[in-house]
Amino acid sequence: MKPAQSTLLVINPNSTQVVTDHISLALEVFRRPDGPAILCETLTSGPPGIESQAHVDGISEKLIAWFEAHPHYRNVDAVVLACFSDPGMVALRETISVPVFGSAECAYLTAAAMGDKFGVISILSRAIGRHKRQVRLLGLEHKLAEDLAIEVNVVDLVKEDLTFTRMLSVGKTLIDRHGARVIIMGCAGMARYRARLESELAVPVIDPTQAGVAIAVGQLLVRGMAAGSGVVAKRAA
Amino acid sequence: MKPAQSTLLVINPNSTQVVTDHISLALEVFRRPDGPAILCETLTSGPPGIESQAHVDGISEKLIAWFEAHPHYRNVDAVVLACFSDPGMVALRETISVPVFGSAECAYLTAAAMGDKFGVISILSRAIGRHKRQVRLLGLEHKLAEDLAIEVNVVDLVKEDLTFTRMLSVGKTLIDRHGARVIIMGCAGMARYRARLESELAVPVIDPTQAGVAIAVGQLLVRGMAAGSGVVAKRAA
Amino acid sequence: MKPAQSTLLVINPNSTQVVTDHISLALEVFRRPDGPAILCETLTSGPPGIESQAHVDGISEKLIAWFEAHPHYRNVDAVVLACFSDPGMVALRETISVPVFGSAECAYLTAAAMGDKFGVISILSRAIGRHKRQVRLLGLEHKLAEDLAIEVNVVDLVKEDLTFTRMLSVGKTLIDRHGARVIIMGCAGMARYRARLESELAVPVIDPTQAGVAIAVGQLLVRGMAAGSGVVAKRAA
Amino acid sequence: MKPAQSTLLVINPNSTQVVTDHISLALEVFRRPDGPAILCETLTSGPPGIESQAHVDGISEKLIAWFEAHPHYRNVDAVVLACFSDPGMVALRETISVPVFGSAECAYLTAAAMGDKFGVISILSRAIGRHKRQVRLLGLEHKLAEDLAIEVNVVDLVKEDLTFTRMLSVGKTLIDRHGARVIIMGCAGMARYRARLESELAVPVIDPTQAGVAIAVGQLLVRGMAAGSGVVAKRAA
Amino acid sequence: MKPAQSTLLVINPNSTQVVTDHISLALEVFRRPDGPAILCETLTSGPPGIESQAHVDGISEKLIAWFEAHPHYRNVDAVVLACFSDPGMVALRETISVPVFGSAECAYLTAAAMGDKFGVISILSRAIGRHKRQVRLLGLEHKLAEDLAIEVNVVDLVKEDLTFTRMLSVGKTLIDRHGARVIIMGCAGMARYRARLESELAVPVIDPTQAGVAIAVGQLLVRGMAAGSGVVAKRAA
Amino acid sequence: MKPAQSTLLVINPNSTQVVTDHISLALEVFRRPDGPAILCETLTSGPPGIESQAHVDGISEKLIAWFEAHPHYRNVDAVVLACFSDPGMVALRETISVPVFGSAECAYLTAAAMGDKFGVISILSRAIGRHKRQVRLLGLEHKLAEDLAIEVNVVDLVKEDLTFTRMLSVGKTLIDRHGARVIIMGCAGMARYRARLESELAVPVIDPTQAGVAIAVGQLLVRGMAAGSGVVAKRAA
Repeated sequence: MKPAQSTLLVINPNSTQVVTDHISLALEVFRRPDGPAILCETLTSGPPGIESQAHVDGISEKLIAWFEAHPHYRNVDAVVLACFSDPGMVALRETISVPVFGSAECAYLTAAAMGDKFGVISILSRAIGRHKRQVRLLGLEHKLAEDLAIEVNVVDLVKEDLTFTRMLSVGKTLIDRHGARVIIMGCAGMARYRARLESELAVPVIDPTQAGVAIAVGQLLVRGMAAGSGVVAKRAA
Repeated sequence: MKPAQSTLLVINPNSTQVVTDHISLALEVFRRPDGPAILCETLTSGPPGIESQAHVDGISEKLIAWFEAHPHYRNVDAVVLACFSDPGMVALRETISVPVFGSAECAYLTAAAMGDKFGVISILSRAIGRHKRQVRLLGLEHKLAEDLAIEVNVVDLVKEDLTFTRMLSVGKTLIDRHGARVIIMGCAGMARYRARLESELAVPVIDPTQAGVAIAVGQLLVRGMAAGSGVVAKRAA
Repeated sequence: MKPAQSTLLVINPNSTQVVTDHISLALEVFRRPDGPAILCETLTSGPPGIESQAHVDGISEKLIAWFEAHPHYRNVDAVVLACFSDPGMVALRETISVPVFGSAECAYLTAAAMGDKFGVISILSRAIGRHKRQVRLLGLEHKLAEDLAIEVNVVDLVKEDLTFTRMLSVGKTLIDRHGARVIIMGCAGMARYRARLESELAVPVIDPTQAGVAIAVGQLLVRGMAAGSGVVAKRAA
Repeated sequence: MKPAQSTLLVINPNSTQVVTDHISLALEVFRRPDGPAILCETLTSGPPGIESQAHVDGISEKLIAWFEAHPHYRNVDAVVLACFSDPGMVALRETISVPVFGSAECAYLTAAAMGDKFGVISILSRAIGRHKRQVRLLGLEHKLAEDLAIEVNVVDLVKEDLTFTRMLSVGKTLIDRHGARVIIMGCAGMARYRARLESELAVPVIDPTQAGVAIAVGQLLVRGMAAGSGVVAKRAA
Repeated sequence: MKPAQSTLLVINPNSTQVVTDHISLALEVFRRPDGPAILCETLTSGPPGIESQAHVDGISEKLIAWFEAHPHYRNVDAVVLACFSDPGMVALRETISVPVFGSAECAYLTAAAMGDKFGVISILSRAIGRHKRQVRLLGLEHKLAEDLAIEVNVVDLVKEDLTFTRMLSVGKTLIDRHGARVIIMGCAGMARYRARLESELAVPVIDPTQAGVAIAVGQLLVRGMAAGSGVVAKRAA
Repeated sequence: MKPAQSTLLVINPNSTQVVTDHISLALEVFRRPDGPAILCETLTSGPPGIESQAHVDGISEKLIAWFEAHPHYRNVDAVVLACFSDPGMVALRETISVPVFGSAECAYLTAAAMGDKFGVISILSRAIGRHKRQVRLLGLEHKLAEDLAIEVNVVDLVKEDLTFTRMLSVGKTLIDRHGARVIIMGCAGMARYRARLESELAVPVIDPTQAGVAIAVGQLLVRGMAAGSGVVAKRAA
């Protein structure tokens, strides 16, 4: 008898449904009939975009409240936070007993697994301090070539040409001047540009949500092996 | 039109075919009709087991020679080294143009993505210095609870009861005395014990080869998205 | 003409007024007619106690909302967060233009200024990971002897004998076994035990709120020197 | 009954009385009738200026001799060394039993408490290596934007326009090119320029002696709380 | 009675005899009638030059095989690896019981003993990543000013004017732009340029093989003191 | 024509002539007719023993005065400080233009060159903090197994049996409990016990003065190669 199918919940902590839709589309490649179900949900109580430390911090309680309001989701097998600031990651780990993966952390770690220095393309420069604190906490400063912003306002993000042109320019600077050999896109909303950017820059370009889902799915597939069990080991308190 | 199927090559750098067979079995969960092909090969020129720094270092040239003797494999889309010492990882990265993942590195990074301190169960204590150098180089010393050996001789590794009893005992010590909340099995040959050990220890237990394949498959699936292309971006020199 | 009196706002981010009262009492020594006014306020929207990462993160938005509801407080000259988890510290720094001091950070830094290794007495062991992340981020791991918990439930914290006995015991362990030469009380609610604990342990014992206020008051006094100005330099974006 | 007034001794380790006078003036804001007495003394056996490692090292014995020649000062409650090289700090800590604060250390730590990267304005570039060793030893390299010198000879230091112009120029470079958001004046003799520099640079500017006295006074005020005791806890050997 | 003369074996791991000859010449100054014999051998099974990680790794087994084929050399008292990549260093340490010194490590450590930042002149930029990993593993990143390559092809290395001109240019950049105060020549084959380069650059220039031999000879001379013993303490397993 | 003989000055910074005599004896192995002259001098103005930070710091000025009183010594080619606290090392580097080696630094670096963790045997535990600061500054904390004291009073140091018994006991603890594979004797006055201790402990035992002289002599021998020159490159300011 095959084990019950396991479930991975991907939460977009901002309230913009179209972002969730794009994320879900970018995760389509990870879905398969006999693999974990990958559910993408929008934290409707979140802000339209996560742009400040206050936004980041504010997600924790909203996320926990969301799980309380959607109790059946407490039975999923793993959670991926689809936002480059990994909002609520530690708080959620203290609250639910399944693995919680931050997409920024998974992007940094996946880049590190590729062996070279990585550069980060951020939306706005005021996020860079926050990113660098997380990289330092992980112990990966020595792998960070640099983190540079495209400085595109939220309103202008829909202008694809402008956004892509800036991403390409920043990516080239990260590679040519700062020695990056892997590029991380520092925003879950950049997913649609990944393939095109990688093609132009000729180095691997990492989308954080995909990086998080790859690791999470791996854990779930592995645990599906255990006869009759889709349950990930409970985290010890 | 769907993109051509991509291929992941998993190489067991020791010459023991039964180890490769067990590895391939442990990777079965990652295979699917529309996903990357996962080929497991044995480096027949390698030693029966990789037990010393000389063994580790010696793999590099053998690995490169193997690729020269099997030129069609140079067209795979990614490589995972299925040995906890990641032998030949840097050398291979300098030689072929596709991503090369070390299973030890991927195990450390996956454990780090779970947020807690990790402990390592090694076969023999003389490998521990080598492991710790790699952890230090990655920047993850602060996440390492401890690395302890089961001290089982190669001859006795087939004695499943002895090996598992020792693994369980060392795992408990790592958790209870050293604060580990994730356990990494420090040998590709321990794959068969993962589920049972996780069940007994009640914390996530990571098999390095599975960790490496999860990340590599993720990269391949993502790149399969690009229309008509299964090719991973070439690494810049 | 003397410069206008400056104002320091000390916010207790939990909603328990009696804690604010004790904090204010412990700060009485810093008040003087010609010095900065030291106002102690309670974040009534906060939880009764800050016991989890979710609590910590949740303070950011509540704190900002509080400033919006009390606009005259945006004109204070500096803010001290009176909670050992420094909740909302970074978010508030992004929001208001005056210096924001975290009491945990100031306690760690004051201990570091005394030259020796410091130990931390925490309430519950589940806070220790959070504390250690902050110490690591500051760069002071090498000064941390150890962080140990008294494991007293909130209900039992009012039992002064129990609490003090545990604090004394943990303090002695930090000194005798871990080499601490300065002790930091890891909770703003421990203020009342400082003098007694210092007397028994015979090493300096630091109350975090007092440490934060000492540094903040220093900055305000200094800036009071400028003729006709009580205004602290605006933080550059 | 109120506790006996406590006493803070601020020692200028160079022999130039006018420097001590300026320091004392800059500390006037910390004096109050019911607060610690703040006594400023000149180490008359010191060199006119502390400009080399030999000068720094030479202070230790002179300082200890000074305390032997002035035995009543051994009963003060804390000591602040008013020189950015913190000469004699460790030696004095081994000799007397009250807290000894280095003004450079306190300046670095106060800057760190403000959350941003700090820049240091030094007199001469040959001091920078010495400064950086101390920052590294504290663990705060990651907070140091850069340390740059104004390269003004001692003879020219009295030329206020020249000195201030150079300080302003270096300060702007630290902010604009190196990302400093707090400026530390790397010499106790720069006190007179603090307010003016802060006004021009629009970021907090820290005078080291004031930073040291703020922390020391805080410790003394707190300990004054204990009924009938102005005595700081003896440091354990 | 004088102790038996001890023997130091210096192995050039590349197969180019003329390099060994130049190394031996550069070591002549360390030879003396009553000192350790310094034998220079060529690893004839090695590649003509060590230019890649594969070359580096490949030396380990060749080196061990060489010792097996030359068993009397297992009785030497210490070994120095005369190649800036320290190939086989760890593997050899696991295999023979006498001290094994890497010349790159000894060069870095000798430069560190001189107190200032050091710069490295490499042949080709692709070696720089390898060098930096070793410096990081040693803990000396903070002493590394920069590592820059002269980018001279192997064929052109014999053109002394070209090579020296490039070395001089790179050395000046390391000093003037990156703050190096000691220069390390990042290749055993650069020995002949040391004196001339030092004369032009006016800072100490370190040849790695000489640095390794200096430390190794020191250990041997010291152990020669013990009456009747030329044997270095066996390394504990 | 052979270059003029170069000269190495070894200074014992304590005033005890018998210590200098023992040091000179331990350095006899480094002397040879055609090598650098190794002169051992006593800093007669120093304290009988260097036992505190004040002693350490006080050496700087005494050392510089000594060079002024003995101007011909300013023409030596290198200096080794024969005391495990490396007193005056940085100050002297700022004062004279030849390389100045600290024996503690050279001992740490030589131990690091042997590849394993090292332990330090100190006289008194109050020196350990000072030692650890230096190890941290060098970047070698990760190589330090532990630093433990024999706690023998100066008066009792002459009791060879007591001293050696304690050294042996501490050495064994460093090896067995803390994983040291190299032992450093943390006092220049322990030289006489080196061979005996190494013989008993069966791991390399390093005498700091010998470590410093080995490196310094190496530098001098190398520079003696330059035709007609015994002069070490001047250190750039």
